[in-house]
Amino acid sequence: MSDSAHLSAARFLECANDTFGDRLMTAKSAIANYTHGEGHYSGYSPDVVFQPRTIQDVQTVVAKATECALPITAYGAGTSLEGNAAAVHGGICLDFSRMAKIIEVSAEDLMCVVEPGVTREQLNDDIRATGLFFPVDPGANASLGGMIATRASGTTTVRYGSMRDNVLGLKVVLADGSLISTGSRARKSASGYDLTHLFTGSEGTLGFIVEASLKLHGQPDKILSATWDFVTIEDAVNTVIATIQSGIPIARMELLDDTAIRACNAKSALGLPEKPMLFLEFHGSDASVTDQLEQVRAIGDNYGGGALNFATETESRNALWRARHQALWAARALVPNSVAWISDVCVPISHLATAISQAKLAIDASDLVAPILGHVGDGNFHVFFILHPDDVTGWEKARIINNAMIEHALSVGGTCTGEHGIGIGKRDALLQEHGPRSVGVMRQIKTALDPQNLLNPGKIFF
Amino acid sequence: MSDSAHLSAARFLECANDTFGDRLMTAKSAIANYTHGEGHYSGYSPDVVFQPRTIQDVQTVVAKATECALPITAYGAGTSLEGNAAAVHGGICLDFSRMAKIIEVSAEDLMCVVEPGVTREQLNDDIRATGLFFPVDPGANASLGGMIATRASGTTTVRYGSMRDNVLGLKVVLADGSLISTGSRARKSASGYDLTHLFTGSEGTLGFIVEASLKLHGQPDKILSATWDFVTIEDAVNTVIATIQSGIPIARMELLDDTAIRACNAKSALGLPEKPMLFLEFHGSDASVTDQLEQVRAIGDNYGGGALNFATETESRNALWRARHQALWAARALVPNSVAWISDVCVPISHLATAISQAKLAIDASDLVAPILGHVGDGNFHVFFILHPDDVTGWEKARIINNAMIEHALSVGGTCTGEHGIGIGKRDALLQEHGPRSVGVMRQIKTALDPQNLLNPGKIFF
Repeated sequence: MSDSAHLSAARFLECANDTFGDRLMTAKSAIANYTHGEGHYSGYSPDVVFQPRTIQDVQTVVAKATECALPITAYGAGTSLEGNAAAVHGGICLDFSRMAKIIEVSAEDLMCVVEPGVTREQLNDDIRATGLFFPVDPGANASLGGMIATRASGTTTVRYGSMRDNVLGLKVVLADGSLISTGSRARKSASGYDLTHLFTGSEGTLGFIVEASLKLHGQPDKILSATWDFVTIEDAVNTVIATIQSGIPIARMELLDDTAIRACNAKSALGLPEKPMLFLEFHGSDASVTDQLEQVRAIGDNYGGGALNFATETESRNALWRARHQALWAARALVPNSVAWISDVCVPISHLATAISQAKLAIDASDLVAPILGHVGDGNFHVFFILHPDDVTGWEKARIINNAMIEHALSVGGTCTGEHGIGIGKRDALLQEHGPRSVGVMRQIKTALDPQNLLNPGKIFF
Repeated sequence: MSDSAHLSAARFLECANDTFGDRLMTAKSAIANYTHGEGHYSGYSPDVVFQPRTIQDVQTVVAKATECALPITAYGAGTSLEGNAAAVHGGICLDFSRMAKIIEVSAEDLMCVVEPGVTREQLNDDIRATGLFFPVDPGANASLGGMIATRASGTTTVRYGSMRDNVLGLKVVLADGSLISTGSRARKSASGYDLTHLFTGSEGTLGFIVEASLKLHGQPDKILSATWDFVTIEDAVNTVIATIQSGIPIARMELLDDTAIRACNAKSALGLPEKPMLFLEFHGSDASVTDQLEQVRAIGDNYGGGALNFATETESRNALWRARHQALWAARALVPNSVAWISDVCVPISHLATAISQAKLAIDASDLVAPILGHVGDGNFHVFFILHPDDVTGWEKARIINNAMIEHALSVGGTCTGEHGIGIGKRDALLQEHGPRSVGVMRQIKTALDPQNLLNPGKIFF
């Protein structure tokens, strides 16, 4: 951190001390909790950590920070993967974990209003008895504010959409500390610029999400999960492609390659064959689930799929998805003292087989431990590069494979990130994907709303 | 138009003449075609009309217009209802009707790429043989560029979403004539600010849409349409509310009140009972359509619904929806030499009965001819105020009812426009809905991208 940043922090502490006193945490031990996400970025430290409890808290602290020209970075559950919440220029870390109230659940309007620190599991536990659920499931038990900020998606997006599709409206604190509302509680609107979607995915660089209205969905009458092994990864992916092209409303369609299965077996004792597998889930009425299942089975049979292994009971189903959600930790256990560098491309569905095959070939040709997992129904997949921090050659190999994946995705009209965001690591790729004039428009918006570049500086843009 | 605007137009004609010559239309007879939409706004004239044939045409003419500080307003199929395409400050009208090519249809990626002048019917006629369709259906045979610009929706939005949900990416010409791409062909992305959604619904005030990638959907195996009469409008609306709350994936759920039915009977010889009616459509497999139908029928039976009158054949189904789509013209035929002022509120579904009942009471208490129609599955409905242009008292009564509808919608968390946009007529309501700071953010974005306020000036903002 530069000297001027230190000066700003000192000034801020002085002028905010009267208002917040002890609540401004500066001890090294407190700050250490905010120096890393779940990805491989670490070592960035804020100067001050503040846990707002109210919207007014956020407004006050942001206004004071702006006065002192001090950077402000929001922090949710610490599950981001592209360094999205790293305080790369120091300053204040706004930890939203104390703003974690579910403000309202409206079963009659199929929606809820939450504070940003509410996690997706907390919300679903809370609303279970209403017969509703919130579908977006990135795996990690992320905060909803963070999920909105990174435009997250996950295992159920193929059926229920991503955060983009499930946010009705927001309250946002702007750089000057003022508060705005976006969107409404109506299902659609043509009322002015779509600020809700502008803030969704802006990674805390335009304002801070302090409240969100989210869509809820009815719990399906029947849920059927299954695992399905294939001889080759291409066979599994071709089954996915044909399923999506047929318009079957499958609720989850996840790919795990042989390495990923090996990792999950080791961690979660799944006892699955170490072959490329699909994890499936069907939602609907009894009749509809049977109908979907038979259609998908017929497709997979054409590609040599093995026997479907069903998990109908809630318990076995939960065990399956828990294992999927813990895949990151399972994969990291494959290499002692490792960290994970996780790629995240998304391609039009017809290009998915090529994209995954090319990645798999490159991984096989290297000696990297790098399982492939994906929300393949969306055309989205990840390579988890499991690396020892000191393995310089390994990181370089991963970089080359990751770049090639992005190049390929962009060459077929895909995107450099399906769901993790740009953060620190994909600022080059953003330019490559959209071109300088389009990124220029993003920057014009950033400059208009945050002229001092204090809101999560160093993210999205260089 | 002011003298300075005249001067700008003269300068523009001079400097663009070399490039476009005869293609710059200035004759009164040519311009007269661009002075009105389908709403009640009229009398605004551009100085010059230009029909671009290529993206390069658009870039060149926009750059030259900006140089001369001349306003530029886009024009699609002329079906907008809030004066969205009216050249209120004169200048150039960019008529996109000659950019009407379907550039690509990718059945394997369930998407297409179109020029902005393609109409929704043209697209659906063209792709019928692929087994796919484009669902968004505002009634009018609008241009897709216009539908994106106003964030349009319509009869099928309850199942397939609005334009917001069906645009994958755009090419946009900015105020300086430069061209950007937004979005991608992937189903989801977390790559930078969501410019696609920013331009969708921006009504041509931030840039001109010159190409769009749109989602397509598989044609359902079975389509079943039906009409359904109720004793009171409340019974019909309560049937809708319970259907939506049950999560039944109905494809269309339209309300027509007794006056609307009378109008449609007169124009389209439907022979329906002049009672509040729902027009329904179910999409799916045989089993799923039957399942949905029985669930909805059970709900409506509780509210005293009459017998369902089915239209299973393509021909009778088309006749039914054609009648619905011509409702505006049918309604206008109720009053000789009339124009229509069409309201457009959208409320959370639980408030729909109150919203419609209040509007109906107010209409009945006036002597206005004002049928109510709605995409009620979305919580969205319209009052068509059918007025003689000289009926000053009538317009004042309509204004009071319209304002009360907006007040009520906003008081329950709804929006002042579900699908028609802000245009000229709802600039006050925009402020009322979002508040000055939020509209201020919209304006900051406008100023950043169009500092001279030349792109469709006088819309959205005062």
